[in-house]
Amino acid sequence: MVAAAEAVAVGTIIKHDNMSNTFGKNCTLTTFGASHSDAIGGVIDGFPKDVVVDFSYIKTELQRRKTGNYSFSSQRKEPDEVIFLSGIDNGTTNGFPIAFFIQNKNAKSKDYQSLNNIFRPSHADYTYHKKYGITDFAGGGRASGRETTSWVVAGALAKLYLRTKGINFYSYVSQIGPVIETEPYTSLQVSEMSKNPLPTPNSKTAQKMMSELSKAQGKKETLGGVVTSIIEGLWVGVGDPVFNKLSARLAMAMLSIPSAKGFDYGEGFNAAFLKGSQCNDTFIYKDHKISTATNRNGGIQGGISNGEPIVFRVAFKPIPSIGLPQQTVDAKGKPCLIEVKGRHDVCIVPRVLPVVESMAAMVLLDFLV
Amino acid sequence: MVAAAEAVAVGTIIKHDNMSNTFGKNCTLTTFGASHSDAIGGVIDGFPKDVVVDFSYIKTELQRRKTGNYSFSSQRKEPDEVIFLSGIDNGTTNGFPIAFFIQNKNAKSKDYQSLNNIFRPSHADYTYHKKYGITDFAGGGRASGRETTSWVVAGALAKLYLRTKGINFYSYVSQIGPVIETEPYTSLQVSEMSKNPLPTPNSKTAQKMMSELSKAQGKKETLGGVVTSIIEGLWVGVGDPVFNKLSARLAMAMLSIPSAKGFDYGEGFNAAFLKGSQCNDTFIYKDHKISTATNRNGGIQGGISNGEPIVFRVAFKPIPSIGLPQQTVDAKGKPCLIEVKGRHDVCIVPRVLPVVESMAAMVLLDFLV
Amino acid sequence: MVAAAEAVAVGTIIKHDNMSNTFGKNCTLTTFGASHSDAIGGVIDGFPKDVVVDFSYIKTELQRRKTGNYSFSSQRKEPDEVIFLSGIDNGTTNGFPIAFFIQNKNAKSKDYQSLNNIFRPSHADYTYHKKYGITDFAGGGRASGRETTSWVVAGALAKLYLRTKGINFYSYVSQIGPVIETEPYTSLQVSEMSKNPLPTPNSKTAQKMMSELSKAQGKKETLGGVVTSIIEGLWVGVGDPVFNKLSARLAMAMLSIPSAKGFDYGEGFNAAFLKGSQCNDTFIYKDHKISTATNRNGGIQGGISNGEPIVFRVAFKPIPSIGLPQQTVDAKGKPCLIEVKGRHDVCIVPRVLPVVESMAAMVLLDFLV
Amino acid sequence: MVAAAEAVAVGTIIKHDNMSNTFGKNCTLTTFGASHSDAIGGVIDGFPKDVVVDFSYIKTELQRRKTGNYSFSSQRKEPDEVIFLSGIDNGTTNGFPIAFFIQNKNAKSKDYQSLNNIFRPSHADYTYHKKYGITDFAGGGRASGRETTSWVVAGALAKLYLRTKGINFYSYVSQIGPVIETEPYTSLQVSEMSKNPLPTPNSKTAQKMMSELSKAQGKKETLGGVVTSIIEGLWVGVGDPVFNKLSARLAMAMLSIPSAKGFDYGEGFNAAFLKGSQCNDTFIYKDHKISTATNRNGGIQGGISNGEPIVFRVAFKPIPSIGLPQQTVDAKGKPCLIEVKGRHDVCIVPRVLPVVESMAAMVLLDFLV
Repeated sequence: MVAAAEAVAVGTIIKHDNMSNTFGKNCTLTTFGASHSDAIGGVIDGFPKDVVVDFSYIKTELQRRKTGNYSFSSQRKEPDEVIFLSGIDNGTTNGFPIAFFIQNKNAKSKDYQSLNNIFRPSHADYTYHKKYGITDFAGGGRASGRETTSWVVAGALAKLYLRTKGINFYSYVSQIGPVIETEPYTSLQVSEMSKNPLPTPNSKTAQKMMSELSKAQGKKETLGGVVTSIIEGLWVGVGDPVFNKLSARLAMAMLSIPSAKGFDYGEGFNAAFLKGSQCNDTFIYKDHKISTATNRNGGIQGGISNGEPIVFRVAFKPIPSIGLPQQTVDAKGKPCLIEVKGRHDVCIVPRVLPVVESMAAMVLLDFLV
Repeated sequence: MVAAAEAVAVGTIIKHDNMSNTFGKNCTLTTFGASHSDAIGGVIDGFPKDVVVDFSYIKTELQRRKTGNYSFSSQRKEPDEVIFLSGIDNGTTNGFPIAFFIQNKNAKSKDYQSLNNIFRPSHADYTYHKKYGITDFAGGGRASGRETTSWVVAGALAKLYLRTKGINFYSYVSQIGPVIETEPYTSLQVSEMSKNPLPTPNSKTAQKMMSELSKAQGKKETLGGVVTSIIEGLWVGVGDPVFNKLSARLAMAMLSIPSAKGFDYGEGFNAAFLKGSQCNDTFIYKDHKISTATNRNGGIQGGISNGEPIVFRVAFKPIPSIGLPQQTVDAKGKPCLIEVKGRHDVCIVPRVLPVVESMAAMVLLDFLV
Repeated sequence: MVAAAEAVAVGTIIKHDNMSNTFGKNCTLTTFGASHSDAIGGVIDGFPKDVVVDFSYIKTELQRRKTGNYSFSSQRKEPDEVIFLSGIDNGTTNGFPIAFFIQNKNAKSKDYQSLNNIFRPSHADYTYHKKYGITDFAGGGRASGRETTSWVVAGALAKLYLRTKGINFYSYVSQIGPVIETEPYTSLQVSEMSKNPLPTPNSKTAQKMMSELSKAQGKKETLGGVVTSIIEGLWVGVGDPVFNKLSARLAMAMLSIPSAKGFDYGEGFNAAFLKGSQCNDTFIYKDHKISTATNRNGGIQGGISNGEPIVFRVAFKPIPSIGLPQQTVDAKGKPCLIEVKGRHDVCIVPRVLPVVESMAAMVLLDFLV
Repeated sequence: MVAAAEAVAVGTIIKHDNMSNTFGKNCTLTTFGASHSDAIGGVIDGFPKDVVVDFSYIKTELQRRKTGNYSFSSQRKEPDEVIFLSGIDNGTTNGFPIAFFIQNKNAKSKDYQSLNNIFRPSHADYTYHKKYGITDFAGGGRASGRETTSWVVAGALAKLYLRTKGINFYSYVSQIGPVIETEPYTSLQVSEMSKNPLPTPNSKTAQKMMSELSKAQGKKETLGGVVTSIIEGLWVGVGDPVFNKLSARLAMAMLSIPSAKGFDYGEGFNAAFLKGSQCNDTFIYKDHKISTATNRNGGIQGGISNGEPIVFRVAFKPIPSIGLPQQTVDAKGKPCLIEVKGRHDVCIVPRVLPVVESMAAMVLLDFLV
């Protein structure tokens, strides 16, 4: 308390206390570490026991979010080897907290040193500096995208568990810059995705996206985009009716992802254009069960899953680390030019798919345990 | 888990327990009551003391969300008189929990009785029925829009407190059906809004929206839309960097509002179309302080407020209670036609503004206490 | 935050924020109101549905904690009529939050006015004043014993639910001042209790206690005592192994009761005197199930219920409002004499039994929902 | 609920989910690992930044709780080297989560193997087995005293922080078996404690305790005892008035310690014997501030610290692992004799002092951040 008071007195720092590094209520993930510290990792408390852990799956998931997969992605390469300290016995979860960490082996703080005290436009440097007074901007501290590595480990475990309940996750890049996949997901072959240079099902769209990315890279620019995500196999009844709606929880999870700027589900923002009769999903009785003829509500009604696939989108801004010189100021307010030199991606969107799925899986796990 | 899974297998009801009727972490609002019960209300725990309560402001705010303000809104009229049971002494908050309730005087359950056991398309009837086994669909129980009356009471109190800190809330209808306000909020005169037949600043847009609503009403249709909301006066440093981002908390709050389908902030979904250089906000030094030349990030960077106005949008679907006959099924899966007879709005969006502001205010209050 | 900072600056007030008026995690009770406000009450969120509410039982429980039952108890008489605002339909819980309140009809603030700014020894006046700066000491605000009325309402509902699961609560006065009931509860006839002038099973002990109380009353003194409480019918497995032990949760609940100074379970503080072989409970197999030959651990092992009756004790200090003149100081530190004139009990212990049971029931409910 | 109830009916396992491995609300400690797993450790979220970490102090604190300090303690020797993964930069906390772990190097599961499926009297084997179905009883899993190593690491950090605020912790053994230190702590020289063979200030009492322990060891018995703990330097105003009382939080923390059976503060259980005038603390004005002439309330009034030293006691039962043969049953209910062979202490009480202090420090930290 006294500390907080003093901090306020000197001006910039609002609070020193809890940064809210815990996600979830029933099954919680608490993460630690920063982009350029010794290690990052987490503890999952409340994970179901008797889940067989497919370690190669975790590896594959980490591979999906890694840099270096694409010509246009950052060349920082981390081996990302996960060390589990507890919670898994003989390859099976034992119901105890699952603790894990990943060493940061390839942190090049030097690349970032020249940035000291200069605020990169649209990065968290400034807000961090004002809130926490942390002068080391290297890699963004806890705000770094590297943090999401831990989310993918937890998410992979969550997906392994949910798979045993028949719940599966799919996601693809549905927009990069001006290139939009206009076909609805129901007309696309998600399984074809791996053949394409980008994780999007339609090969023609993939080509156009690649070409757009290449153009942007040439201009030292970056691009934003949209991820479409589908959860299949979820039964009716998941989510609470008032403040803990499934939709609200997914929204919160998605907006936790660095660079996320928007979330919608079902018809989403497009629903604003529709008439009631165009947006309602008619109930039908088929194969001895009630379902809906269409899925304009994206599988959620009144905040509760209705048995149809959950369909949602997340919008990402272009990452702010562009290669072009930019006008900015330093911590003293002095104007200066900045040219970001770190190893950065042209577009984060293809790499963010496992992060989106992981957060969605953690939300479901939290409701289901 | 096994137990829960078995329960799902043998029947419809997943759990009877906590419906998560509490919003917030530090300053909490716990609500109670249902659309057609004796009363609705709430308890606010953690509200600051020494806040002068302007009761007429609370009344005005309730008036804003009331039905019956517009020719196209439901004619159910509730006096909505708030009775405070504790937490306010001589018109000033005393730091104790603020408990309040509003009697439901005008509940006409009869209008709804014919709906018994018939699932209204895109309503929460079905998910409710499957999750809770509640057969009384009247007014949607806790899922009803009437619940938001309590949110507006709490939100009005929160706004009164935040106003003493220099924080103010504005919002307007930026889209109804195909009619979109294309001017950015910075070119609009929000203060002009009250002159228009709809809470939108541009009188021409207001006319077009009215005309669209009138057309829809004639066709027994309903319309969706978008709300744009602005928070001015918030200082740098509000929000946490990882899981409790200001953006994530706003997203969760907004997706808690009935009929909300999407949330974005700053450039939002539009950011997907932009290049990095088009989406970055250049830092400048002006009037002895650091600010940004533009506000494409909507006042939040890395999950933390950056001192610029917070700007966000919420998309609402057309309310599903249309006057046209619709195909559906009953609880036994038997197909039937439904014609919704209750008193419903053509478009919820104009009435939802104080709800949007209230939820945003509750989020801020939660961070600031 | 700013408010807090300013408060620290002026000296006495540490924080204005959340007073933690919520009890429980899964099934929560949030209470409101103060001793001398318009009303007190609460909201129970997460209470199971389909529980038949025996309103006369609630009345009886409130009667048990009421003043005026005994010659030695305060003559403040409140009708304590509970008004339920939601959560109960046709006498049965509906799974929605249960909101209730009780009007404060008999608050005589005048009795307390002379105390203004004078700190009553061992009351919460001083700590309250220093923490919250509240000058109105009347009835102790939220710290008053009147608050426990709401706990008894919630506890009565919890006990009604738990009774349907075969779980029952018993408690009796096992010590008042120097008079101790030395027989273990297993040798006592709890059902005989109602015949005695005090809620203690042994009529001889009851007589001695009454005589001690009468002596204390003559001397304008007050007396402390101990409550012994038993929960029967709880199955194996309730409680968590590390931080959320059943024993820890009971301890916290009991120490929340005004005037409680200690908690122990099983052999409790007496265990310090015993050897391992004297304190261990041998496992036996009887009637086709495993149980223990003795119950020295009070039904909890490793924080988890073991199927034996839960047995615990709570120690209460003599209430500090004695009739004798006492030396003290006022808010400015000026020494003065105080003679407490309000309507107070000689001993709170007999009245506290339903409060002890209610808190224990709320703890169990929280684990079981 | 129905699901849970059914689960109970059909089998032994109640739930697989969250074991509540998190302690605290504002500054949280989440622990992981089990007695005989690879490692134990924890993550502290919300720890203040800029605290200089005295690693040798942490080591000393770990040394205090270690086995092998006394002739009568278990000879299992763990190097207990703490590895910090994050949250500390250049020997100073950085405000990020502090993650740490300690490898379990000396786990001899073999010693325990013969116990398989046999329930040790008054251990957590039985309740664990029934709740979690875990057949590996080795070392008690998460219920093991080894878990408290992580608490001591977190507690040492907390004490380092609190020391900078002028808050200090003292504790001593005030009872072992029949030997009781009858002098109040105010007449004892705590600083003399280190000269004695046991952490108790009075050398004569220490001798008697040692002799009692030696006798018990000779008889293959174990002994219980009491710890008295004092917190000096805490200011007025810490604790909440209703459900989050400082006393209630301390009670919960203490009853979380393995083998703890009771908690009281101030006069505690002795208060039951006193008259009001004997238990009240008169307010006085001395040295320009208000204080109390006595400290019978143990530094807490109405759940809130009053500026006097916090004084509390914790009772511990004799550890159940005695060397004598004991009657018990196996998982099938078959009676058998058990002779516990593991390396165990005669009395846990001297080793538990740093654990008591650590939990108290964590409680204070949670209130103060």
